[in-house]
Amino acid sequence: MFKNYIIGVDWGTTHLRAYLCEIATSGDINLIAVEKGLGVSKQTSSFESSLFDCIDPWLKLYGKLPIYLCGQIGSSIGWHEASYLPCPINPYKIKNDFLSFTARGFKVSIVPGISCCLNNDEFDVMRGEELQILGWLKLNPNHLKGRYLLCLPGTHTKWVLLIDGEIQLFKTAMTGELFDLLTTQSILIQKNGSNFNQEAFLSGANKTINSEQGAFSHSLFSVRSKQLFSQLSEHAACSYLSGFLIGCDIRAAMNASQWNMESFESIEIIGAPHLSDCFSEVLSIKNIKSTVHNVEKITLLGFSGLR
Amino acid sequence: MFKNYIIGVDWGTTHLRAYLCEIATSGDINLIAVEKGLGVSKQTSSFESSLFDCIDPWLKLYGKLPIYLCGQIGSSIGWHEASYLPCPINPYKIKNDFLSFTARGFKVSIVPGISCCLNNDEFDVMRGEELQILGWLKLNPNHLKGRYLLCLPGTHTKWVLLIDGEIQLFKTAMTGELFDLLTTQSILIQKNGSNFNQEAFLSGANKTINSEQGAFSHSLFSVRSKQLFSQLSEHAACSYLSGFLIGCDIRAAMNASQWNMESFESIEIIGAPHLSDCFSEVLSIKNIKSTVHNVEKITLLGFSGLR
Repeated sequence: MFKNYIIGVDWGTTHLRAYLCEIATSGDINLIAVEKGLGVSKQTSSFESSLFDCIDPWLKLYGKLPIYLCGQIGSSIGWHEASYLPCPINPYKIKNDFLSFTARGFKVSIVPGISCCLNNDEFDVMRGEELQILGWLKLNPNHLKGRYLLCLPGTHTKWVLLIDGEIQLFKTAMTGELFDLLTTQSILIQKNGSNFNQEAFLSGANKTINSEQGAFSHSLFSVRSKQLFSQLSEHAACSYLSGFLIGCDIRAAMNASQWNMESFESIEIIGAPHLSDCFSEVLSIKNIKSTVHNVEKITLLGFSGLR
Repeated sequence: MFKNYIIGVDWGTTHLRAYLCEIATSGDINLIAVEKGLGVSKQTSSFESSLFDCIDPWLKLYGKLPIYLCGQIGSSIGWHEASYLPCPINPYKIKNDFLSFTARGFKVSIVPGISCCLNNDEFDVMRGEELQILGWLKLNPNHLKGRYLLCLPGTHTKWVLLIDGEIQLFKTAMTGELFDLLTTQSILIQKNGSNFNQEAFLSGANKTINSEQGAFSHSLFSVRSKQLFSQLSEHAACSYLSGFLIGCDIRAAMNASQWNMESFESIEIIGAPHLSDCFSEVLSIKNIKSTVHNVEKITLLGFSGLR
């Protein structure tokens, strides 16, 4: 009765999200239940305990289900280190290289990450996003043909070039991690957690997206100096910083030698809803169209592709 | 007997350094004693307690001495907020605008900061560096004539344009603060506190100083990916990151529209010895000459100029 049930766990640096899903005979995937937990860098107990705290009730109800983990849980700072498969690669191939082991009598499979090499000797890596790219490929058969640029914002933004269903190469920007560090630990932000301020966000984005030489080093301090001179309220400073960092990230993607951003009909954005909208909005400043996808739907489609 | 004694306290974001000095009749300044304490952002007790914990023994020995404070202690996150004097300004003028008050019966004077306005509406500020610039002016009478570019690395680097003894304008880069955050709190560095590695430092610096478009956003992650692919050891990662960030900072200074770096005979560097040497070395990659000054001597000369 439950032979089409799977457990998929998206276990990144900052969050754990465990999904109990049913794969319908049509190939559709239905979400039955979700549990949330702590990311890899925030663990206080063992990875095994954290996992089973989340999924034990499901295992009790439904017995031995396939358990798939993806994300930083398979990295050198995670539970068991899974390999990186080199680009170019069709994401469907990740299911041939699981790192599988037994925990509390259950088989657990960690999805491998993907690596690429730029300019002969510069490597980049992803873990977790390969599953979302797989989900995005399953979303629409047309995605298997043609050139696409995907933008996956999160703790780290991944910019991914796909040609005919194969990941060719990708680039990482630490935009989300920088935002977290700078809002919680730096001199720039004294009051964290205010509401989103659209005007401040756009002001920050315009500061960097339009910069000729890359304004990061000598403009970041403007987050503070603008507050000192009443050009930015304490409550809007986080939004300005968010725009500033996303502007830097998109500017770098526009200047990347590996693709011409204007050659794509639309940039495919896969990330948390508000964050995705933020990236879409800054792209629109430069008249670049984008399509924002439902990240949960894409992630579940990815897990369904692992069977 | 002690009428030429003063107490000068350089009280920044991360450190407090209290100096007991004698101003000789020749104008020279002699250091009698130093005490160290916690910076403004690291306080656990009141600013008053922290100050007197450091200087009480001197007051008991020598009675009422002038007490001068400079740095972030005079900022909005400090003890009492001192004003910012606008550029252009001769640093000697800071002694006309002390914020003075009485604490435990002693007169305490906080040195004002300095502000400047770039491109009509972008403000920048300094606190503490104005005292060092005053010290640098006192170091050599020739400094009162001509054009100079000063580089003051620290928690925040300040790049300062001086013409005929007046600060014209300056720019801030948060290089030191970013380095601290990224080494202690980010995914980039797993083992902090290793020895300086010259080769890794230069590799990081070359990554950014020679970047055409500004490599920050899409290259910072190389600190981690290079470790994953054995191009950088865990122990050398901090040095690579240091070079990376200093390279970004200097690249931005070279691209600044407010000056032409090549027009200066030598860049005048005032900062902690190792950090100053690091900046000097990265400048030399671009064939830019620099002069590294003794920051303690310069700071003491600055305090002597307040009388």
